Amino acid sequence: MIKKILVANRGEIAVRIMRSCREMGIRSVAVFSEADRTSMHVRYADEAYCIGASPSNESYLKIDAILKVAKETKADAIHPGYGFLSENADFAREVLGMGIIFIGPGPQAILDMGDKVTARKLMQRSGVPVVPGTEKPLSKTKDLTSVAKEIGYPIMIKASAGGGGKGMRLVTDESQLQSSFDMAQSEALSSFGNDTVYIEKYIESPHHIEFQILADQYGNTIHLFERECSVQRRHQKVVEETPSPHMTPELRLKMGQYAIKAAQSVNYVGAGTIEFLVDDKHNFYFLEMNTRLQVEHPITERVTGIDIVKEQIRIADGNPLSYTQDQVLMHGHAIECRIYAEDPKNNFMPNPGVIKHITEPLGLGVRTDGYVYKGYEIPIFYDPMISKLIIWAKTRNEAIDRMKRALYEYKITGVKTSIPFLEKIMETPDFRNGTYDTHFIEKNKPYLHIEEPCDYESQDIAMFVAYLDFMKKQEYKVRDNVTNKPSPWKEFGKKRNMLRF
Amino acid sequence: MIKKILVANRGEIAVRIMRSCREMGIRSVAVFSEADRTSMHVRYADEAYCIGASPSNESYLKIDAILKVAKETKADAIHPGYGFLSENADFAREVLGMGIIFIGPGPQAILDMGDKVTARKLMQRSGVPVVPGTEKPLSKTKDLTSVAKEIGYPIMIKASAGGGGKGMRLVTDESQLQSSFDMAQSEALSSFGNDTVYIEKYIESPHHIEFQILADQYGNTIHLFERECSVQRRHQKVVEETPSPHMTPELRLKMGQYAIKAAQSVNYVGAGTIEFLVDDKHNFYFLEMNTRLQVEHPITERVTGIDIVKEQIRIADGNPLSYTQDQVLMHGHAIECRIYAEDPKNNFMPNPGVIKHITEPLGLGVRTDGYVYKGYEIPIFYDPMISKLIIWAKTRNEAIDRMKRALYEYKITGVKTSIPFLEKIMETPDFRNGTYDTHFIEKNKPYLHIEEPCDYESQDIAMFVAYLDFMKKQEYKVRDNVTNKPSPWKEFGKKRNMLRF
Repeated sequence: MIKKILVANRGEIAVRIMRSCREMGIRSVAVFSEADRTSMHVRYADEAYCIGASPSNESYLKIDAILKVAKETKADAIHPGYGFLSENADFAREVLGMGIIFIGPGPQAILDMGDKVTARKLMQRSGVPVVPGTEKPLSKTKDLTSVAKEIGYPIMIKASAGGGGKGMRLVTDESQLQSSFDMAQSEALSSFGNDTVYIEKYIESPHHIEFQILADQYGNTIHLFERECSVQRRHQKVVEETPSPHMTPELRLKMGQYAIKAAQSVNYVGAGTIEFLVDDKHNFYFLEMNTRLQVEHPITERVTGIDIVKEQIRIADGNPLSYTQDQVLMHGHAIECRIYAEDPKNNFMPNPGVIKHITEPLGLGVRTDGYVYKGYEIPIFYDPMISKLIIWAKTRNEAIDRMKRALYEYKITGVKTSIPFLEKIMETPDFRNGTYDTHFIEKNKPYLHIEEPCDYESQDIAMFVAYLDFMKKQEYKVRDNVTNKPSPWKEFGKKRNMLRF
Repeated sequence: MIKKILVANRGEIAVRIMRSCREMGIRSVAVFSEADRTSMHVRYADEAYCIGASPSNESYLKIDAILKVAKETKADAIHPGYGFLSENADFAREVLGMGIIFIGPGPQAILDMGDKVTARKLMQRSGVPVVPGTEKPLSKTKDLTSVAKEIGYPIMIKASAGGGGKGMRLVTDESQLQSSFDMAQSEALSSFGNDTVYIEKYIESPHHIEFQILADQYGNTIHLFERECSVQRRHQKVVEETPSPHMTPELRLKMGQYAIKAAQSVNYVGAGTIEFLVDDKHNFYFLEMNTRLQVEHPITERVTGIDIVKEQIRIADGNPLSYTQDQVLMHGHAIECRIYAEDPKNNFMPNPGVIKHITEPLGLGVRTDGYVYKGYEIPIFYDPMISKLIIWAKTRNEAIDRMKRALYEYKITGVKTSIPFLEKIMETPDFRNGTYDTHFIEKNKPYLHIEEPCDYESQDIAMFVAYLDFMKKQEYKVRDNVTNKPSPWKEFGKKRNMLRF
């Protein structure tokens, strides 16, 4: 029986894990860097230990320091969260070597899925579709036409040594094939000193859709349906939802089966995620597996009712799965917005600083997972994500309306946040209609333009003080946006969207 | 189409109604008393009007002032919330008379259900069971034995003019009947100058179980299952849950049918609640109908996924019900705790004042509906309930564990609150086992005794400042509750339950 868990992480995910520990009657041990001395996860834990200086590699990535705390505190298990050491096979191996339970898959599964080439081979062997392409680099043009035909147009010719778009050519039909190949080869040579290229199928209008997996130590594997994660900025997820508006019941059934197959091919144990690319014709291809808890796991928790962290702990503790596949049902619709301390008006530059004021949205269908509080200084050393806003409603349309309401209520001052950007996303026809793919943000640039500054403090707090003052002076007066008589209230009405509360 | 709703209420329920309005794209109009100038419902609304002085009868109960605002703002509809004018048939009639939609039942249904004698007669006519008793007061002892036998022992003999337990006798079998009757009569005469008494069945171990009803204007009526509300202090609900641990599928089916019958007997339209008393043998008796939204409606929303306020608005707007009875399903378990600004150590005296600090619990399965914020002064004029904490989990046991976690996280300083009392309730074996009735609080007195003062401020804030100070000074030091070496941390560890965050 696990009685004490060391959470080898920080921020919102550490707090989220400790919440489940507390509900299960399990003691939690926090580790923290110098910069995190006042972090909420330190306060939330039953015990807390400083493990080093602020940069991650001197604390949250220091395996020996973490293991030392685990030993001293007699922790039964370690939960790695996401990021940091969560997909580090050495860490998992060392934890196990100390006789401590690692809340995650075995080291071999982490290794296999961590290596793209190995993972691709394993998937092919198990019959899980991967993005079609040449297995080995092409140096000769001999079989070019037949290889391209086999993969199917459109295709991408890519430089093996490439990156940054160099030596890359999109080919939509056979007529351009030879010339594009030659150009790609010569560009590859001049750019990288190496003319090897390979061919991969070009996925048009791709959707990033992933399946949540749970597997116990006895060979039982189930999935908890999909998450649509196509709203991305620089390959970083921004908004996730489930069910996917791109999904059909038939596709879900099929992809779910392949997701289970993928996990079983590495004898996966615990919670994991199989990521797929899905095109507009519902062809799907294995992208990668995340062998850990994911940022966006709460939307799955909300539609299935399953506490994924508790399941991770139960599985690690040697219990069989609590659910069979038939018992896992989806109810309603969930959307998650990631709230970052960054400035959407200034190229999304991280904007650490002191939280001067924070009001979380509350009420029906609203969950926030955060870790910052009034007076907390966001350290510069880590990911600037400060909170996740998770919305549930009976229908997708209602969930979007509720998300808009919750974003309206969410008030953070002191640092700039991505909230105004997320509000714009919710307003786009593409998001409302569910007709979006991974090109969403670039396609919707005009809709996502933000005019007002993203720091509410200057206007908002000043406005609010003036408002209170006004309300004290004006007794029994009607707000001016109704009577249309000139009054100070008119000014407040104009800036209504900043008044939140 | 309703486009603007005046919310004739204050506090958490006004904010909760406005949240649904915002999600539906409906403008909200707040009315407020002088004392409520800084209330959150005023800030949340799109428009806000002061309607009078702080005492309720000079503002929230002033029909003409409210109707004046409704007229000036061209509101299409008025939502009365609960309390105040919500069950005032005159108000409903006057609203309708102005051509404004009243979001609630017709005035006649309010009148019929508001009068206990009329309601009892209506129920009997419709075949809905009521607590058996003599229809008319007994002044002669003639039929005493046969009347008592017909009602069935145990019975209560009650003085018609009575109150406060005077002239009241519990009779468990026939041998005591005559002597008890005589005593009750003489006590009634000496106490009230009137010796009329009547007989009512005594319900042993009664459960207060109510059914949520939705009915449209076209004769369709459904129920959204039950709420168990037996945890009461001075006839005030303290904790509610659904499903009821006292319920069986057969009883639910039967009670649900009678609840619908009860609502239909007054041609009920909108959301309402049929309250029953249920004994330990699963006999149930109509108690009363609340012809309005109830404080505890969120637990029903959580297990059914139905936004009851939105349904109220849709029904009032002339739409048929969004659901048939078959489409209403229950998922998991929900519990609500009512948070009051009161002092559990001082006989639950209301404890208004300024909120110095508030941290709401967050994360999976937690909903709070509140209206106070840091710096807000709770007025002395109204009900001291400041928030409702609603928990959902897959199972009842998990919901209790989660409620304990959430209460642990809930931090309010500046005023004393009922949070420590609620924590004690969650710890009792009777609540955990679901073996409680309306006598729960008196039966569990020893468990519910609170030792520490209910104002965290003095210790907690001081502790917290000391803690931060300590964390700054001690680098890389291990918390003492692990190493057991003497260190300042030991002191913090002891008071851990107050450290929250």
